[in-house]
Amino acid sequence: MATTQSLTIPARRGAAARVSAGQRVKVINTHGSQVVDTWAFNARDVTEWMSMEASRAWFLKLRAAVGDTFRTNQRRPILTLVEDTSGGAHDTLMAACDLPRYRLLGVEGHHDNCRDNLHAALGALGITVPATPSPLNLFMNIPWTPDGTLAWAEPVSTPGSYAVFRAEMDLIVAFSACPQDILPINGRTGRTTEAHAVIE
Amino acid sequence: MATTQSLTIPARRGAAARVSAGQRVKVINTHGSQVVDTWAFNARDVTEWMSMEASRAWFLKLRAAVGDTFRTNQRRPILTLVEDTSGGAHDTLMAACDLPRYRLLGVEGHHDNCRDNLHAALGALGITVPATPSPLNLFMNIPWTPDGTLAWAEPVSTPGSYAVFRAEMDLIVAFSACPQDILPINGRTGRTTEAHAVIE
Repeated sequence: MATTQSLTIPARRGAAARVSAGQRVKVINTHGSQVVDTWAFNARDVTEWMSMEASRAWFLKLRAAVGDTFRTNQRRPILTLVEDTSGGAHDTLMAACDLPRYRLLGVEGHHDNCRDNLHAALGALGITVPATPSPLNLFMNIPWTPDGTLAWAEPVSTPGSYAVFRAEMDLIVAFSACPQDILPINGRTGRTTEAHAVIE
Repeated sequence: MATTQSLTIPARRGAAARVSAGQRVKVINTHGSQVVDTWAFNARDVTEWMSMEASRAWFLKLRAAVGDTFRTNQRRPILTLVEDTSGGAHDTLMAACDLPRYRLLGVEGHHDNCRDNLHAALGALGITVPATPSPLNLFMNIPWTPDGTLAWAEPVSTPGSYAVFRAEMDLIVAFSACPQDILPINGRTGRTTEAHAVIE
């Protein structure tokens, strides 16, 4: 019998967990304006991962809607979005933030970042992956125009809103509560907060 | 003195070459309707590669225009689009085709595919990479609607039209003349052809 796991994704940090096929993964935007970068890896072969480029080619949308299934780099179903109270702004287009990104934004010295958070969270489970896949950026609002211009916009999600996924295989899910405090993707205040996940 | 290399990208096959910083890479759509999946890797460390997700985050567009610079997964400039006579429909959204993709499209047995072509072309230069980066799909026309719906459309390029890039570092460039003959991305006839590149 699968047990329920409750996971805190600490502010500016990552977290990862094992999920069995058929379980539901609920990601909660506890304070309402926190982007959560999300990755999934096949538990049996972590070189197979959720792929934004394979998923877009499958559901033929820039953003998934309820009922859409994300696919791996082997084109297999891995996560299906089954419920969403957040307004649906989940970005598939942008790389996870990383230290070189913060350098370009003028930061000197250390800055927390989603790439390091991913690898640290996987490392805590004893897992190493050979690259940083393009993440599913939950609650991240990247609008596009008819001519294809993109923008960093403020979140449209509200406190306690959430997205729920069904696991389509045994997998490792990893999250990072995005520490971006220069661009307004976590809100104009630059406040970065914790978020939560429930695996049930 | 850098020499000029002429490269044939055979129909349904790949090709790769070494390029020095400052050289120009001209990719020619010889027969006018051939998609060319394109990748670039830092010649000194092939785990650093041209990243569609980092590039979109840099130029803030779904598609690059002349003057835009593609960035690596370390956020460094790698290729700048400096000239384009093809109509500018170069896709950054879709995964390279692979055998599992053709299975989903109903193909049994072997089908040529861009993923295998990439790794074979790199292999011919003695290079192995640990993943298949999301490609820059030259001449591939993937329109979007205001609500984010994507489609596989026919090419808008014409015979002999081309795109020219400036190399921003010493790099390995790899191409695949996409063997997709089921979807209309290489034209409705399903004809797949050779293309050419000149490195000068």
